[in-house]
Amino acid sequence: MKIVPASEFALKREVEYGSAEQNDRVKRIIEEVRQEGDAALRRLAEQLDGVRVGELRVTEAEIEAAYREVDESFLAAIREAAVNVRRFHEKQMRTSWMDLQADGSILGQVIRPLRRVGLYVPGGKAAYPSSVLMNAIPAQVAGVPEIVMVTPPATAGVEGINPHILVAAAEAGVREIYRVGGAQAIAALAYGTESIAPADKIVGPGNIYVALAKRYVFGAVDIDSIAGPSEIVVLADDSADAGYIAADLLSQAEHDEMASAILITPSAELAEAVRLEVDRQLALLPRRKIAEKSIRDYGAILTVASLAEGVDAVNRLAPEHLEILVREPFQYLSAIENAGAIFLGPYSSEPVGDYFAGPNHVLPTNGTARFSSPLNVDDFIKKSSVIYYSKEALLRDGEKIMTLARHEGLEAHARAIQIRLEKEGNARG
Amino acid sequence: MKIVPASEFALKREVEYGSAEQNDRVKRIIEEVRQEGDAALRRLAEQLDGVRVGELRVTEAEIEAAYREVDESFLAAIREAAVNVRRFHEKQMRTSWMDLQADGSILGQVIRPLRRVGLYVPGGKAAYPSSVLMNAIPAQVAGVPEIVMVTPPATAGVEGINPHILVAAAEAGVREIYRVGGAQAIAALAYGTESIAPADKIVGPGNIYVALAKRYVFGAVDIDSIAGPSEIVVLADDSADAGYIAADLLSQAEHDEMASAILITPSAELAEAVRLEVDRQLALLPRRKIAEKSIRDYGAILTVASLAEGVDAVNRLAPEHLEILVREPFQYLSAIENAGAIFLGPYSSEPVGDYFAGPNHVLPTNGTARFSSPLNVDDFIKKSSVIYYSKEALLRDGEKIMTLARHEGLEAHARAIQIRLEKEGNARG
Repeated sequence: MKIVPASEFALKREVEYGSAEQNDRVKRIIEEVRQEGDAALRRLAEQLDGVRVGELRVTEAEIEAAYREVDESFLAAIREAAVNVRRFHEKQMRTSWMDLQADGSILGQVIRPLRRVGLYVPGGKAAYPSSVLMNAIPAQVAGVPEIVMVTPPATAGVEGINPHILVAAAEAGVREIYRVGGAQAIAALAYGTESIAPADKIVGPGNIYVALAKRYVFGAVDIDSIAGPSEIVVLADDSADAGYIAADLLSQAEHDEMASAILITPSAELAEAVRLEVDRQLALLPRRKIAEKSIRDYGAILTVASLAEGVDAVNRLAPEHLEILVREPFQYLSAIENAGAIFLGPYSSEPVGDYFAGPNHVLPTNGTARFSSPLNVDDFIKKSSVIYYSKEALLRDGEKIMTLARHEGLEAHARAIQIRLEKEGNARG
Repeated sequence: MKIVPASEFALKREVEYGSAEQNDRVKRIIEEVRQEGDAALRRLAEQLDGVRVGELRVTEAEIEAAYREVDESFLAAIREAAVNVRRFHEKQMRTSWMDLQADGSILGQVIRPLRRVGLYVPGGKAAYPSSVLMNAIPAQVAGVPEIVMVTPPATAGVEGINPHILVAAAEAGVREIYRVGGAQAIAALAYGTESIAPADKIVGPGNIYVALAKRYVFGAVDIDSIAGPSEIVVLADDSADAGYIAADLLSQAEHDEMASAILITPSAELAEAVRLEVDRQLALLPRRKIAEKSIRDYGAILTVASLAEGVDAVNRLAPEHLEILVREPFQYLSAIENAGAIFLGPYSSEPVGDYFAGPNHVLPTNGTARFSSPLNVDDFIKKSSVIYYSKEALLRDGEKIMTLARHEGLEAHARAIQIRLEKEGNARG
């Protein structure tokens, strides 16, 4: 792992938007689903994945069978995680409000859940039960009455739907599940088919075809942000444990070859110790090849003159995950401007948040923490403004409203006020 | 204006994504600004708009001069509107929270304003002072320390920057203003030039080149949603005044030829009376040609059997603006699922909200009220999750976290926990 001064480092990763060929393919798939519905879903599953799909919808019996297939330890852990995630997100709930003014007017903001949300869950090895919880529970807490999941029926090396995924879905309150994946699943959620009613929003990770399809249907439905490669930054002083830091960096690096793991420290001793620990622990990892490439291409140990300079470097990088492993971590919290999730102290290893503590693990990647937030309950609600103007208020403000409208050349706007003032016997202009 | 049963009506308007030629042109402009900075801004202003720009930044003296150019009535009205808009948006503010758990852990959510927001304001006749307030004030209320405005120095028929725009900006607390418009202004805000520092988010309306440029730079910076054509739906019973309704429909129709104005009513008498009133009032409007085309192509009077059926039609249309002109308007509020802003009763004409009452006039268009909200303070903040796990909590939960990680095949995640459990003398696995 290279050791360089923070001032000389910039993280550059190109986000993939797909080739022209991939874009064309996605457009074609979406059009086929729009025109032919279920028939297209079945044909594409056979053509693209070699899978013959019988019933599109997963049955209650299959969900019950999945419960019999998973370990008790898994079930207990996922249930407790779901409780924690639900409790954290309940704190994000907001309520509608209406304010009565002295003049009898009422202004307000009504909060309503989206009606129907689609959750995409990848198949195969990228099928993560924890992601099912993290995407479904905020929608459930928001009050979304219909949460529907789509997931490919089979992919290379994995037969049928992973029972852990079905159990996680059921634990998160999702029981409307369809065997459909890829761009065709996104098309079905956006436009609907005979079997699948259209959704108002689509969330969840997926491969390049899923990402391109989400981008393509955006506008007809809402989508979540499209996740880029993942990153962790650890800000540490000489009180930190090099073994812990190395393990945390590698837990990020094993995700994929584009993942980035960065240590920032004013301690030359710690920098060297972490470098050695990363090499030692890396050699023992099952996903060594992926982690090695990630560490080589996007990993770094950045040296800084002080923790204050380290904080500046953190804010420049705007990492998805930030760990602060220093003597008094809370002292630095208010200076952190840009980070998706902030883990404080030696026991707050990133996997604590990935799986269990309660905050969401769907976080802004690739520097977008400058302006984006973790997935949260607000992503599943919408607001409407409420305006009830009293007669008294209109008579008082009417002329001013007409003045502003006429300065913008919008005479019909002014007249909508004027006709009322005239009728109420108060027009001057 | 055509009268048709609601069940037979669907509003179809294609949203413009620009031609290939327009897209290429925008990409070229953005690349030029990225590479050449201010020099490109000056060259493009001369090439595209025939304007020679001296100082890019508008001076304090020019802002003071603008104040001397506007009427007192305008200044009084815009100041009062700004107070109302600020007061409404202050109700949307949220605070950070941190929760201490019984095991000593702390979980929280930190709310921070974006650092720098760019506001695009079109030139010429589409320069609306009210839009300056509506876009800038929520950012200001959110606590954004740097709000910067860009606006074209001149366009056909209008010399220099409209003084009403400069005054509105100053009243909204914006004093960093640059004479630059079009796609090049968006590029400057996204990537920065020698004179203009890059922003974290760009908001505000613009022509097709501005919209395409915003779409293009999205990811490097955040953008607001790209506004489609505007619409109003009026839900009315036989107690409503046909003249008021016609005036309100026309105030929407005068915006542009793609705007849509729709009345929904169970009263055949009201339907006929509004049809006649629209014709009568239309003939007297300065923007008659625009309004006439809008009414002909996208206007309609929809008949329904009952107000309940009318509410269903409203929810299907998901209008940007909804007026409810019935005997007891509040009775229907909770049934309205999809609408950007809801105006209740005879005195809450849409221009009251467009200009003055306080709620934002930047609203979800073209049916997106199904999943989108009025522009609001949340659009200018970001959240970070905070996780401080205590040693006690980690020792209690460590095994469960490892179980979940290993079920996802992420061994390095499990080991980041295991190394801690081993060191703390509590490892079992």
